[in-house]
Amino acid sequence: MKTIPEGFLADLTALLEIPGVSAWEHGRSDLDRAAEWLRQRLERAGLHARLLTDMPGSAYVYAETDIRPDRLTLLLYGHYDVQPATMADGWTSDPFRPALRDGKIFARGATDQKMNLLLPIFALAEYDLAALPWNIKVFYEGEEEILSPNLDAALLRYKDLLRCDAVFSTDGWQSTANQGDLRLGLRGFCGLEITVKGSTKDLHSGTFGGAAPNPAQALAKALSLLHDANGSIALPGFMDGAASPSEAERQLVREQPFERADWLARAGLEDDAVSPYLAVGERTGLYPTIEINALEAGNYAAGLRTIVPRSASARLSCRLVPGQDPDTVAVLLKDAVDRAIPAHFDRQIAILPGKSRPYRIAREDPFQELAANVLTAVDGRKPCFSYSGGSIPMPGAIASTLGVNTVIFGFGLSDENMHGVDEFCRLTDIERGMAAWRLLLQRAAG
Amino acid sequence: MKTIPEGFLADLTALLEIPGVSAWEHGRSDLDRAAEWLRQRLERAGLHARLLTDMPGSAYVYAETDIRPDRLTLLLYGHYDVQPATMADGWTSDPFRPALRDGKIFARGATDQKMNLLLPIFALAEYDLAALPWNIKVFYEGEEEILSPNLDAALLRYKDLLRCDAVFSTDGWQSTANQGDLRLGLRGFCGLEITVKGSTKDLHSGTFGGAAPNPAQALAKALSLLHDANGSIALPGFMDGAASPSEAERQLVREQPFERADWLARAGLEDDAVSPYLAVGERTGLYPTIEINALEAGNYAAGLRTIVPRSASARLSCRLVPGQDPDTVAVLLKDAVDRAIPAHFDRQIAILPGKSRPYRIAREDPFQELAANVLTAVDGRKPCFSYSGGSIPMPGAIASTLGVNTVIFGFGLSDENMHGVDEFCRLTDIERGMAAWRLLLQRAAG
Repeated sequence: MKTIPEGFLADLTALLEIPGVSAWEHGRSDLDRAAEWLRQRLERAGLHARLLTDMPGSAYVYAETDIRPDRLTLLLYGHYDVQPATMADGWTSDPFRPALRDGKIFARGATDQKMNLLLPIFALAEYDLAALPWNIKVFYEGEEEILSPNLDAALLRYKDLLRCDAVFSTDGWQSTANQGDLRLGLRGFCGLEITVKGSTKDLHSGTFGGAAPNPAQALAKALSLLHDANGSIALPGFMDGAASPSEAERQLVREQPFERADWLARAGLEDDAVSPYLAVGERTGLYPTIEINALEAGNYAAGLRTIVPRSASARLSCRLVPGQDPDTVAVLLKDAVDRAIPAHFDRQIAILPGKSRPYRIAREDPFQELAANVLTAVDGRKPCFSYSGGSIPMPGAIASTLGVNTVIFGFGLSDENMHGVDEFCRLTDIERGMAAWRLLLQRAAG
Repeated sequence: MKTIPEGFLADLTALLEIPGVSAWEHGRSDLDRAAEWLRQRLERAGLHARLLTDMPGSAYVYAETDIRPDRLTLLLYGHYDVQPATMADGWTSDPFRPALRDGKIFARGATDQKMNLLLPIFALAEYDLAALPWNIKVFYEGEEEILSPNLDAALLRYKDLLRCDAVFSTDGWQSTANQGDLRLGLRGFCGLEITVKGSTKDLHSGTFGGAAPNPAQALAKALSLLHDANGSIALPGFMDGAASPSEAERQLVREQPFERADWLARAGLEDDAVSPYLAVGERTGLYPTIEINALEAGNYAAGLRTIVPRSASARLSCRLVPGQDPDTVAVLLKDAVDRAIPAHFDRQIAILPGKSRPYRIAREDPFQELAANVLTAVDGRKPCFSYSGGSIPMPGAIASTLGVNTVIFGFGLSDENMHGVDEFCRLTDIERGMAAWRLLLQRAAG
């Protein structure tokens, strides 16, 4: 039944209007509002809901149905925080004033992942919870976009509360509108923030240039050591232990539907920007990366200022594959950058508190198979399987701490500008997602 | 007579309140206001003043006394445009609302160089112009801070109007408060703006990272080729033809008073940021540089966004020594950066329209000697001579086109944050500058 429930769009709008940017220092009060909004919404859906606030960082929203020992327990995971967004980035309309245009809702968090958070809540509300074949637990966090710095500790602290047979992550997405795809893996994550410091002030490049050290120059030099001229990773030690893709994994990637032209359009890239021989699914799913996410020195936007800038900053992040530990890689990267910056520069190099372990789940996992059956019923065809290039800390973390697997079960499409400008979700995503969650909760397809 | 004339501070405040940032696209109307303000002020001082507006770019303010063939003609040069400045750069008070604190006037353009523009105007106003031993011509431009892209053409067009025996540039500064210094050289200038383009939009670094090209990475790599690990210039061909400092030049630099601790304080640098063996005056005056003035990719200030940024930009500028032609070096640099960026990236690499030739004037030049005598009378001691690291297009341009030399005759001090945050001038700069211009105009010290 592919329908949008009454009240869904109003509730989604209300939730999207709460910014909740976990990367912003001043974002905390909005995150608190979003958590409380979700707690009340879960109560209205008939669950027992509360906020878990013993940990540093924003609250975990926890809810459960009446737990009966004769039922399997599903833990539904998601996150209510979003990526930063400002009009200055180039948004068409205010990222925190949802706008409906052409069947799409434009707002930060629309597809990643507030729409996805609401799908199971609305599906649960349609059922007599006592008659469901599952115990349901809900665990929504507010720090995923900063890579869940407190999640490992929280999972240990709430170990008994979170005990379950499987996790279904509402954080995820689909590659195409008419065929499901399920993730057999996620890449891990770690990152750095680097600031190289020169003078306490910007200096006239004529008066001081040649004698005053230039931190932008030192930063560019240090960053240049991470890749070779072709853009391949050149950082010594980075690939140590990283699993090479197995033939089975590569075969599975090759079985995915892949239209180069569609992918280029989604990526906003010209044909000649990417080698025709590039195996996109392998590169994004099965190989690690080191990316420069942002650079800053000397206020470029303010126009020509002939200065030696007082400082230069970069944010780097890595995506990791099995065999790479995020803590180990972060230290390796930090040390390499530190060594590459000449000794006479002061510097701050901070490992981002968030991290994520690489994750794998077997295609034959029974909950993965249940999800596949649900998607087959929804789409009228079997789903494909893929390895996601993205990172969600929860699956790796809960596998480590509680020994349970996570099925990635999200419903936005991958062209919906997640993390980018003009993020949106489609009304058709909601219809499809509702249909899937309705079936899953009834275990109707299992 | 070291006094500030009546009306000077009010006029300086009025002129500083007109932003006039030549690097800003929207800066033109303010520049027009500043030019007209100066024209009227020169009229009030008794000169015949008009705006020269036939060239592209902002107007040249031209004024002259009644020209008598039996007198030598001095051309007074200056610029009424300023560097960009915004509160976001960290100013204590609005850069375009002058603030007087502790005997200092804080505003963009205070020392560079609106205070200096007004000194000869107020000095001229104190005299019967018909009785002066000089013909005076004034030529103030509004494009110096973008390195005077139209100046060569303007000098050719107004060749007859500008004919003179010597140029005195009001654009300049002094190293110390109690001893004059006169510049025997300026470095040349050329620059580039580089934008490397990836996608049309920021991309999720998980979903796309590893397949989508990262322009920030390509930019860092390209920039890293310009210097070696010690920060020395490594760009092949850059030093071709560049004059090595002569022993006489080096000797002259060594004769300059130089206090390392003072210089470090002025530069805002810790002692260990600069080698104790660095010959600062040689590095800034006699050697060329390539500086990264600004970097930008992915909106660093907006917080952690795990993206492959859609583009990455840098602004570079070079300071040049005799034997280096700014046009030739700009093309060399552009080609090197272009080659270093892999072919699959779109890019825009623009040579900055402004440029400046390196410049030298002999210590024995009679107008240079006149200036030295004036400063000796003002300060009660002989001035020193130095090579400036800065660039002013006019001296090299007018030497090429009209064959006249330029004396650099400005009165701010070098710690007054030219081009930086919290630029200021001192009331004592005005007192000293007025005394010098009063003597020079009477030729009293000659």
